[in-house]
Amino acid sequence: MNNPIHRAWLPHLDDDVPSDCASCADVAVFELTLGCKRLNASVPQLRPEPGLEEGYHIYEEGGKPVVAGGDTGILYGAYAYMEAVKAREPLPEGVRQPFYRLRMLNCWDNVDGSIERGYSGRSLWFEGGGFHWNPRRIRQLGRMLASAGVNVLCVNNVNVHAEARKLIEDEGLPELARFADVLRPFGVRLMVSVSFAQPMGHGIPTADPLDPAVQRWWAERADAIWRAVPDLAGFLVKADSEHQPGPFTYGRSHADGANMLARAIAPHGGVLVWRAFVYNCLQDWRDTVTDRPMAAYQTYAPLDGQFDDNVILQVKNGPFDFQVREPVSPTLLAMPHTHLALEVQLAQEYTGHQVDVYAMNPMWHELAEDLPPERVMAVAAVSNLGRDDNYTGHPFAAANLYGYGKYAWDPRVEPEAVLRRWARLTYALPEAQEDALVRLLMDSRDVYEQYTAPLSLCWMVNPGTHYGPSPWGYEFALWGTYNRADRDAVGIDRTASGTGYALQYPEAIRVKYEDPDTCPDKLLLFFHRLRYDYVMRDGRTLIQRIYDDHFEGVRAAEAMAEALTRLDLPEPNRSEAVRRMDMQLQNAREWRDVVNAFFHRLSGIDDAEGRKIYD
Amino acid sequence: MNNPIHRAWLPHLDDDVPSDCASCADVAVFELTLGCKRLNASVPQLRPEPGLEEGYHIYEEGGKPVVAGGDTGILYGAYAYMEAVKAREPLPEGVRQPFYRLRMLNCWDNVDGSIERGYSGRSLWFEGGGFHWNPRRIRQLGRMLASAGVNVLCVNNVNVHAEARKLIEDEGLPELARFADVLRPFGVRLMVSVSFAQPMGHGIPTADPLDPAVQRWWAERADAIWRAVPDLAGFLVKADSEHQPGPFTYGRSHADGANMLARAIAPHGGVLVWRAFVYNCLQDWRDTVTDRPMAAYQTYAPLDGQFDDNVILQVKNGPFDFQVREPVSPTLLAMPHTHLALEVQLAQEYTGHQVDVYAMNPMWHELAEDLPPERVMAVAAVSNLGRDDNYTGHPFAAANLYGYGKYAWDPRVEPEAVLRRWARLTYALPEAQEDALVRLLMDSRDVYEQYTAPLSLCWMVNPGTHYGPSPWGYEFALWGTYNRADRDAVGIDRTASGTGYALQYPEAIRVKYEDPDTCPDKLLLFFHRLRYDYVMRDGRTLIQRIYDDHFEGVRAAEAMAEALTRLDLPEPNRSEAVRRMDMQLQNAREWRDVVNAFFHRLSGIDDAEGRKIYD
Repeated sequence: MNNPIHRAWLPHLDDDVPSDCASCADVAVFELTLGCKRLNASVPQLRPEPGLEEGYHIYEEGGKPVVAGGDTGILYGAYAYMEAVKAREPLPEGVRQPFYRLRMLNCWDNVDGSIERGYSGRSLWFEGGGFHWNPRRIRQLGRMLASAGVNVLCVNNVNVHAEARKLIEDEGLPELARFADVLRPFGVRLMVSVSFAQPMGHGIPTADPLDPAVQRWWAERADAIWRAVPDLAGFLVKADSEHQPGPFTYGRSHADGANMLARAIAPHGGVLVWRAFVYNCLQDWRDTVTDRPMAAYQTYAPLDGQFDDNVILQVKNGPFDFQVREPVSPTLLAMPHTHLALEVQLAQEYTGHQVDVYAMNPMWHELAEDLPPERVMAVAAVSNLGRDDNYTGHPFAAANLYGYGKYAWDPRVEPEAVLRRWARLTYALPEAQEDALVRLLMDSRDVYEQYTAPLSLCWMVNPGTHYGPSPWGYEFALWGTYNRADRDAVGIDRTASGTGYALQYPEAIRVKYEDPDTCPDKLLLFFHRLRYDYVMRDGRTLIQRIYDDHFEGVRAAEAMAEALTRLDLPEPNRSEAVRRMDMQLQNAREWRDVVNAFFHRLSGIDDAEGRKIYD
Repeated sequence: MNNPIHRAWLPHLDDDVPSDCASCADVAVFELTLGCKRLNASVPQLRPEPGLEEGYHIYEEGGKPVVAGGDTGILYGAYAYMEAVKAREPLPEGVRQPFYRLRMLNCWDNVDGSIERGYSGRSLWFEGGGFHWNPRRIRQLGRMLASAGVNVLCVNNVNVHAEARKLIEDEGLPELARFADVLRPFGVRLMVSVSFAQPMGHGIPTADPLDPAVQRWWAERADAIWRAVPDLAGFLVKADSEHQPGPFTYGRSHADGANMLARAIAPHGGVLVWRAFVYNCLQDWRDTVTDRPMAAYQTYAPLDGQFDDNVILQVKNGPFDFQVREPVSPTLLAMPHTHLALEVQLAQEYTGHQVDVYAMNPMWHELAEDLPPERVMAVAAVSNLGRDDNYTGHPFAAANLYGYGKYAWDPRVEPEAVLRRWARLTYALPEAQEDALVRLLMDSRDVYEQYTAPLSLCWMVNPGTHYGPSPWGYEFALWGTYNRADRDAVGIDRTASGTGYALQYPEAIRVKYEDPDTCPDKLLLFFHRLRYDYVMRDGRTLIQRIYDDHFEGVRAAEAMAEALTRLDLPEPNRSEAVRRMDMQLQNAREWRDVVNAFFHRLSGIDDAEGRKIYD
């Protein structure tokens, strides 16, 4: 643990949290004692104010710092105090409360130790079919989560494979309870993903949510689970999605399904988080009527108001699936009488596999343009954590975990402020270098977008892995993800005269996107099918813009690589970041050349600037 | 074993070969006693004539049948006698000897029980890291191999994964010997695939073939191996191919590498089979100079005459990799001073996964047009065997195992005669139905070709699985398999003015293929790059021909399906064949629609007959 990369953005906390810290207050005392010594700062007095719950208040009294806070808030306050000191920022003023009460991390960890879409090594807590962890690393994780402000950890993959079901069965509960114990002093509650069909492994011939035997099984199961883990946050469910079981099998609605589970866990204070990621994953590519982004709205909007009070419908930020650029999911705007959670993905499935640099706060910040933060009451992020020494694969990917927590506390926070804070906490760089690092992070998403999917040319990825280009890799497949490029045009018309997707939005948003003249360029081909010779607002043709963006995206990546080499990062971070940047450049060039070749072969139109397009 | 599908084309041999049959003569006695009773035929007298070796001679003496034969030949003769009786054909005349002395089956079985490119279930003899088999099934396999006339079984995958190396180490030899024992009475000798780098697991820092320590290690290993299995046929090696180790690492030629191993095993009478499947599997798609089909010739032709006498260079039938249509490999025509083996693939990797019907004898028979059978001295086939009840997945795929053996005995044998014999041995169908089945099999390859890869439009397969269409799935990949289609034209110019591939052929063959007017249509786009409006000999344009072939291929598949339903096959063969045919039809329609859509999107040219092309 002496290697600084093991401590993420907390290098001043260079000793383990002792295992006998039993509460957040205990941890706060330890952390402040250790951290303030390292930071040469006054150790604040801690003042419990249970009424503040997760909130805290930092102030001076008689010239001495005081951190007041609720049971968990006192720990958040302790970290906030040290952050401000380390980052040379003013102490936060007034009482601070998190904007979202549930700030969840969804871990797609399988009990065999693998992680679906994991790019940071194997699971930190599963191996060989069940829990198996290094207590020091989990306490370090707890510290990271608490300092970022994340308070719920869903421990297992939403795709609940057979072996994972035992997590909530009698044989698995003691292990779950032990894992909950280790994270509790960090204010982190566990959640578990459950399979809708789980009763069927127990002599019940159905999983019909209206069947009393099913209801009874879940109620009894919930009793046992909460006996073992009294503060369990709840269940997470992926139902009727990508071959997971669900209520559709029994002709029941998703409200029927979710409410049945919600009622089983309500007596224990649990929440039932139900993912809205439902679509036809066996679409026939010949079918041009079905339009996958429309599926969630079609399924859920009619159910608005029908969900129980402890149900949270968790909706991905965009209507597809974590592409680099999507409009906001219309489902998030269509359900005022439903508790909604916004789901984002820290794991860089489509955004560079934690090889390519991709800082996400700018992306989340954009959401507010169409989605006022008040429209959802919780947030969830698919985890980018793993067993790698630095937890997140790319050393800079830790900024996304940290930044997610800050976003969950304050969705209006300025991305640059968050990334600067992360950079300053993590590295002690001279000012110009810090500026360069923050600029690199701030630009990283736009650069990645430019060389992979400008104009929302999404889904041109290698099937399966989702890293690297394959313009028609998903074009004739079952997943509903088509670009329908031909020799003349590309894109899908999703206006009222096309698939009608745009009609799912409130009027003002619909109008903006439906007109190619007001639709942002970056979403142009998501909403419109356009000819290659279509003239864009800046006077360039569509095809020229596709070429330009790919060429410019690679040039920008090369500039990022150049900037990176000038940063005096500590080792091994520096070598690791440089090594990954080399891979990123290769990826960027591959994207440029493949996508440009693809459109050149189709369109026959040469680059106006005569740059090399391979054929 | 009472289920007829378990007995392949030998339903009259409805009892197990006893485990105490210790020689081919023993098995012959048992088989004739059992089979002639079932067939109501006279039991011939067996007359050993050791000089005949694998040959046999069936004749009458005093009105009674006699089967004379060498040690193995006597068993081959016994099966030949019963085949003729069952098939109602005249007894074979004169002394029969196999055309090829080595008639090898290459099994890509891994010791963990999986099979690379296996479509008939798991391995018949490996599981859990080593040998593990059902003796009854292996003796049934021995009977099948002997009756087909196959005499060498290479037990393990040419990609020798770490765990498979122990097969030839001391700990593995007793098991190898036991497996050899069970197949020896059927005239089947074992072969093993070895890793060129194997000495490096034993304290030797190199696998350089010129290093004395390496040579010594292999010589000692060979001593131990042949002590355990005195009649082992030899080693099979895939070197410097698709990431397998090889002599290139040490700057040595493949003659250096092969001869080193050959010398180690020569004292024991072993042959060293060296695969010529060497190419750059990390090609940059931007590179239009490198042309993968040229690789084997470039590597091996200069080495002609340099291989030791017990080296056999095993060359795939075509220069690519078992596509449905390839010209003959020029390497097979370029090495008169080298022992060559022809390698074909029974496993239907690119030819339908034993879901789609694909009888191969017609394909092999065509080879003789450019490759006189005398140009090679041995044959090898990648196995299509597996643990499925019927051994080959599709019940008709057994025809390829049977047919391969017959081809190996007589490469000029008429495909229709072989397929009719197989059909008659396997099923007792009324004549019209038998004709229909034979027609179905005879047409099956052309039909598959027509809906997947007419005009040699190969490699348009889904990456990885190699089943189903993906026109550009391999287009921007590392494997050297490109069609380079654009809005105007498709194909690679492999003439002297193109990549120069055609120059690897003898003059007469080169001339035939270089001129689009004499190049067979079925190889047109392998050798030529042509515009979609190119007018073919039959007056149709290239694009129209692409459309027509795909439409007609599906229609022909539908006719096959129709014909299949009228066959009174025994169960479960009938249901299984019908079930797979449904999948084949779906596959065929997918190929038609995807490939036609692909070319329509590119060319913009409509089908002249106005049939439905999806976009």
